[in-house]
Amino acid sequence: MTHDNSTHSTSSRSRIEEDRQREEDRAGSPGAGAVMRVIIPLQGVVQGRGGVVLGSVIPCALFYFLQLYLKRHRSERAPRDEVPPPPRRPSSSHPKPVLVSSRALHVIEDENSPYYMGWKAYKQNPYDAENNPSGVIQMGLAENQLSLDLIEGWLKSHPEVSSWEGISDTPLSLRGISGYQDHHGMPILRSVMADFMHEVMKVPFNPDQIVLTAGATPAIEMLGFCLAEPGNAFLVPSPYYPSFTRDLKWRAGVELVPVPCRSSDNFNVTINALDRAFSQTKKRRLTVRALLISNPSNPVGTTLDSATLSMLLGFATEKNIHLICDEIYAGSVYDSPNFISIAKVLDSGEFDKSRVHIIYGTSKDLCLPGFRVGVIYSYNDKVLKAARKMSRFCAVSSQTQHLLIAMLSDTQFIQQYMTENQRRLGKMSHVLTEGLKEAGIKYVKSNAGLYCWVEMGNLMPSYSEKGEINLWDKLLNETKINVTPGSACHCIEPGWFRICFSTLSCQDMTVALQRIREFSKHCKRSS
Amino acid sequence: MTHDNSTHSTSSRSRIEEDRQREEDRAGSPGAGAVMRVIIPLQGVVQGRGGVVLGSVIPCALFYFLQLYLKRHRSERAPRDEVPPPPRRPSSSHPKPVLVSSRALHVIEDENSPYYMGWKAYKQNPYDAENNPSGVIQMGLAENQLSLDLIEGWLKSHPEVSSWEGISDTPLSLRGISGYQDHHGMPILRSVMADFMHEVMKVPFNPDQIVLTAGATPAIEMLGFCLAEPGNAFLVPSPYYPSFTRDLKWRAGVELVPVPCRSSDNFNVTINALDRAFSQTKKRRLTVRALLISNPSNPVGTTLDSATLSMLLGFATEKNIHLICDEIYAGSVYDSPNFISIAKVLDSGEFDKSRVHIIYGTSKDLCLPGFRVGVIYSYNDKVLKAARKMSRFCAVSSQTQHLLIAMLSDTQFIQQYMTENQRRLGKMSHVLTEGLKEAGIKYVKSNAGLYCWVEMGNLMPSYSEKGEINLWDKLLNETKINVTPGSACHCIEPGWFRICFSTLSCQDMTVALQRIREFSKHCKRSS
Repeated sequence: MTHDNSTHSTSSRSRIEEDRQREEDRAGSPGAGAVMRVIIPLQGVVQGRGGVVLGSVIPCALFYFLQLYLKRHRSERAPRDEVPPPPRRPSSSHPKPVLVSSRALHVIEDENSPYYMGWKAYKQNPYDAENNPSGVIQMGLAENQLSLDLIEGWLKSHPEVSSWEGISDTPLSLRGISGYQDHHGMPILRSVMADFMHEVMKVPFNPDQIVLTAGATPAIEMLGFCLAEPGNAFLVPSPYYPSFTRDLKWRAGVELVPVPCRSSDNFNVTINALDRAFSQTKKRRLTVRALLISNPSNPVGTTLDSATLSMLLGFATEKNIHLICDEIYAGSVYDSPNFISIAKVLDSGEFDKSRVHIIYGTSKDLCLPGFRVGVIYSYNDKVLKAARKMSRFCAVSSQTQHLLIAMLSDTQFIQQYMTENQRRLGKMSHVLTEGLKEAGIKYVKSNAGLYCWVEMGNLMPSYSEKGEINLWDKLLNETKINVTPGSACHCIEPGWFRICFSTLSCQDMTVALQRIREFSKHCKRSS
Repeated sequence: MTHDNSTHSTSSRSRIEEDRQREEDRAGSPGAGAVMRVIIPLQGVVQGRGGVVLGSVIPCALFYFLQLYLKRHRSERAPRDEVPPPPRRPSSSHPKPVLVSSRALHVIEDENSPYYMGWKAYKQNPYDAENNPSGVIQMGLAENQLSLDLIEGWLKSHPEVSSWEGISDTPLSLRGISGYQDHHGMPILRSVMADFMHEVMKVPFNPDQIVLTAGATPAIEMLGFCLAEPGNAFLVPSPYYPSFTRDLKWRAGVELVPVPCRSSDNFNVTINALDRAFSQTKKRRLTVRALLISNPSNPVGTTLDSATLSMLLGFATEKNIHLICDEIYAGSVYDSPNFISIAKVLDSGEFDKSRVHIIYGTSKDLCLPGFRVGVIYSYNDKVLKAARKMSRFCAVSSQTQHLLIAMLSDTQFIQQYMTENQRRLGKMSHVLTEGLKEAGIKYVKSNAGLYCWVEMGNLMPSYSEKGEINLWDKLLNETKINVTPGSACHCIEPGWFRICFSTLSCQDMTVALQRIREFSKHCKRSS
């Protein structure tokens, strides 16, 4: 998609170049010769009558109309991507391979991020305390497995939710759910989801503003389709979630423009950085259509305060662009300050709501990424209308909706679960940061999410992106620890890494910290 | 998407027009005056030296470079869709509504099809023998509820599949499936799905060529993204499934070009119609990238023979385009001739496989559309690579994958189920067609699918699309029967309707036929 657009814009740019080139060529070409052969005698005639003005106007006009004729003539030829019709021939001997789209080719080629190479390395050689103690420890995947036992316990103690016995006549029987549903989610689930989001974010939500999608990934893509023309841009404070680029660029064709945040600001976004990015993007002839933020921040693991949220809203309002808040980790806040949803700030009534869209889902806070449940919560009627219809492309399984309706309706369980999950996240974050301290590694004090944002610049062979990737490679291939390098998150400063702590047991975390300590020692010794 | 493309192409076309207009304007504009003020004295100098040739070349060259300068200068101005930066002002009083994309607007506006109006009318007033005997009977929805009791029975007799007890340590435990999975489907499910497709289509399939998606809808869209640039065209023999347009045009931007099939050919596609559509599409300056067929045909309910399939493959090969075969009803064939998959024809080795892509899923043959499980089966490596990566936007719930692995692995059940489902479909088709005969309504003899393709031209007030919609409206609003008018399926002949028979019990079918008989009588009487 994006590639297609870039080729599109490149091709239109190169077409201008070509036009220019052809016109320049034509000055010394047979075509230009021909025009001169017409103009010169004519000018002779005119000059013969002494017409200085006409003598200038006529050749100019003729040259102009010639150009016009050639331009029209050219544009009547076949479009650039037309496949010339092959002659009828025996079908099996066709020599030409059939073409796939340029967007498909772009997606195929877009594969070199260390973020994904690390995943692959882990998959090929996963650590297991007993069976593969020298394998790769996965600290690059933002998946929460710390509280899965609680979800499993609830499912086991509520067999009626998963069983198909005894509910034949209810709307949640197989007959009730097996057929086509509202693509954007069953009404009961949207209602229960609104209550769940209220519980998590401490602000009420309207079920009619919810569009459910098969995970947060298609929710983000959907907003790309709804808010931007192909080739338009979204500003994104960096470091940011590495896959935003794929989510928005591959098919929706949205360009992401990083708004660099710095360690000196604790990686908080500033109005100056926003203003600068906005005007630089305009200079690149890109139209900015939205500002995309994640709160809690992925990868930094901090929450935004209400002053910052108001500043972001003010900026979006001033530039008349949309504000997308990815709040997928809203329930994974384990330390003060508390999480503040953009929905809370909108409650003040100070801002136009129609530019605000929230992303949520059950992948992080409920440990269920495989179940593919995402949420778009929009205040914009047009976006809601379009997204409801487009959700045909990413509808949630009704079987999973059926399960979630029951689970989210058990508000007592949900409250207990959220508290306990946050306690466990906080504990694991503490274990990790204590270990990092011991290893002499600095980090940003975080209060949310499944990861810690650490600084290992002093361990790098050189202070550069290359040095960072070199360190990451050593960590992965020598120390067998997979983390996410800051460059994959578009961090402007080299030496930062995202380390996830929620896929490991306490025992495995001890092994991981031991490896990191030794790695740190080794690096310092060799420098 | 599409709309956006059309605006895109329109805007590039209108930009050329504008350029031309501006250039023409400029001939009499101050800009042109200025150039003349420069050229004329210069020409005087040159003429003073008697240079006839230079006297022509210099003004032409100057005029040309002026044009070039103006063109460059113009293109440096803001792009067309740029929002002019508003002055800093109090945020709440911003007067401009924030823009959504043109593709979103197109999707919002694309709402008038009777296909969807009928669904709405049914939803607002659904027939129920006891509670709402005067409600709308749904015969417009291609959903199979005839064999749902068999699926329910299997689920009830296999509680271990849905329960979370006792499987904690298996790869199919909650811990095994709750996390992130291969977006394109778990390896076990792809393997079991290949076997299931083998059972249904009587030809072997390779699990590595399967990409699972959240329903067949995103599978079709995905092929749009992978095979076409925005604005490229797919040929589709008509009448065709009404939602193909939405699936391919909304976001992937693919234009559908109907290849008209006629009742005199029993609605079979002919090579002449294909050739004509192809060359007409080229005349419209659209690049054809694929031929999209449904086999068994939706809405006609017939299967394609191997000669036709070879003809279609030959045509695609000759034109060097892709062939997409939507085989979603492959297992719903209830009468001879047997179904022949395109995969079977490819087995001959006569054709290049890399242009062929099959769509399948569990929505029709397994009565589970709500569970959102679709299949792309492609013979093209690039398409497979791109689709695997793009499937992040439409992944199947792992909970549903878990259930299907168990169900599809029970091959004895699957074989019995398929046979019984086909028997029931055949029986219900028979009941419907006997009723139609009694009512004096003609139909195409069908052997597959969930519907009958009937001709009610003689009941229409006028032989036109308007007459057809008029009849459809009466059927819906007076007789309270929702069917799909042929025009929604892009049928070239007015008077044809698709009537689905698989959502009704035998009792409800009797009521529906009674209503249709009376309606037919009434129409004939009043004409």
